[in-house]
Amino acid sequence: MAGRRARAGAVRARVLIRPKAGILDPQGGAVARALPALGFEGVHEVHVGRMIELEVDDPSTVGAMCERLLANPLVEDYEIELLG
Amino acid sequence: MAGRRARAGAVRARVLIRPKAGILDPQGGAVARALPALGFEGVHEVHVGRMIELEVDDPSTVGAMCERLLANPLVEDYEIELLG
Repeated sequence: MAGRRARAGAVRARVLIRPKAGILDPQGGAVARALPALGFEGVHEVHVGRMIELEVDDPSTVGAMCERLLANPLVEDYEIELLG
Repeated sequence: MAGRRARAGAVRARVLIRPKAGILDPQGGAVARALPALGFEGVHEVHVGRMIELEVDDPSTVGAMCERLLANPLVEDYEIELLG
């Protein structure tokens, strides 16, 4: 949905979900090990997370959606970007 | 790694990976169905993708990393954001 406009009355939102600092990130570790094996050197600090894009009529509800469904607040941080 | 600065000489990059338009997005469908069941109405166009954040010495190589490892170009689109 990159570059698209939201429907009338709705707001595009993007939720970025990452493992909390100190929580194991096995996917990030796998990518960090695989890249040099493919010849890509000079890569550091790889983290793999999720992205959820949605259109919402009321953007103030997105935080609650993250807490209740989209993220696992015990082990994940989330960041909400409103894209207009 | 939100808000962090990259190490000296490296650039922080974020790769956003989405199912291509027309490709089934079962995770997005599951979220779209679950949100109203939790009382969140007014949500449309839910898409679930991946986010990969990394620090690279040479940001011009990130596209090749996407093509070769990070994304599946047959069924996924990727977008690269350089965060400085």
